[in-house]
Amino acid sequence: MYLQRQYQPGRKWLARLPFESDLLGEIEKFAAEQNIKVGQVKVIGAVKKAVLGFYDQQSKEYRSLYFNKPLEILHCSGNLSIKDGTPKAHLHIALGSEDGAALGGHLLPGTIVFAGEAVIEELIGPEMVRGYDLQTGLPLWEK
Amino acid sequence: MYLQRQYQPGRKWLARLPFESDLLGEIEKFAAEQNIKVGQVKVIGAVKKAVLGFYDQQSKEYRSLYFNKPLEILHCSGNLSIKDGTPKAHLHIALGSEDGAALGGHLLPGTIVFAGEAVIEELIGPEMVRGYDLQTGLPLWEK
Amino acid sequence: MYLQRQYQPGRKWLARLPFESDLLGEIEKFAAEQNIKVGQVKVIGAVKKAVLGFYDQQSKEYRSLYFNKPLEILHCSGNLSIKDGTPKAHLHIALGSEDGAALGGHLLPGTIVFAGEAVIEELIGPEMVRGYDLQTGLPLWEK
Repeated sequence: MYLQRQYQPGRKWLARLPFESDLLGEIEKFAAEQNIKVGQVKVIGAVKKAVLGFYDQQSKEYRSLYFNKPLEILHCSGNLSIKDGTPKAHLHIALGSEDGAALGGHLLPGTIVFAGEAVIEELIGPEMVRGYDLQTGLPLWEK
Repeated sequence: MYLQRQYQPGRKWLARLPFESDLLGEIEKFAAEQNIKVGQVKVIGAVKKAVLGFYDQQSKEYRSLYFNKPLEILHCSGNLSIKDGTPKAHLHIALGSEDGAALGGHLLPGTIVFAGEAVIEELIGPEMVRGYDLQTGLPLWEK
Repeated sequence: MYLQRQYQPGRKWLARLPFESDLLGEIEKFAAEQNIKVGQVKVIGAVKKAVLGFYDQQSKEYRSLYFNKPLEILHCSGNLSIKDGTPKAHLHIALGSEDGAALGGHLLPGTIVFAGEAVIEELIGPEMVRGYDLQTGLPLWEK
């Protein structure tokens, strides 16, 4: 591994996301309120619409993909760590369409909850801080 | 969050699902046998066929989608809580086709296991009970 | 369940996967270095290309699917157990394309990391050992 750090289990919650809340924003608001510095997140449910990012590895930019329709959240998961001094959620999401076809990408603001059930787990240990990574152009965990 | 509750880690199992068992039924049978009131579940493996639900947010009804073919379980995950007095599994599933295209939705009975490996974690704390939610028409966790 | 075993939580890590590492190989190298006998793994990030397996339940052989393009890792998850005396990762992966369409299958060697963030959890308890299962033709956990 390029970077590996060890953690103890911290607090753990089940939570129901509010109807019409912003999925990413709601998770980050909860992390800030509870002062979770490192953690992991899992969500299932459904959204009214979704905004996903696909990272162009050549141009080093996210493209935004807009899906303005109801979708099942097959799985939305990722981690909480520190970026620019505040808790930042890095979440990827897989979604299911009305015919069962699956979509997915990097979760962006603008993804609106219809119903959502989350498991949020704090990890106790060293801070993980994101900084600009030259090779990928992404804000990755740095030593 | 609309609702948030804190938990301690409980018992934790790895389990192999029986060949040709019903995926949802087998998880719920295990939860009932072990008296797991709150928990989380993750499964990978493969199915012989799948029945998925897509929730129509307008009509407030699930549509059933039938896929009568072998599929990889990319990820099946969700939670255990109480509905109508018994442990209820709410699981969403992502599946992979023979050409790699992904499918997914709300896991329904009739999804038959070819091979399955589960991690099941009990959470110790307040009960989470599902009741009818007027806004969505879904059986959501209630205060 | 056909087989169920109970575990205590062990060590837990966050880790960043090296640029251009082999996703499956890097996880198995880490498991071997840390002597993790039983565990679970979750990864999000992106790959430069992917090799996925789809198991043909009739012929009892994996078909390899090659996707020679950048893809988001929507979710890669599974377990660590023992096969042929060494730690073996059994991971399934869901991937997102540039138009948001999702792909997925059994993770095979040749899937090359662009960026990857892993949560790796050790489970303390009885060994889980894979052996040939006649019914499926797969290396499944055996009693």
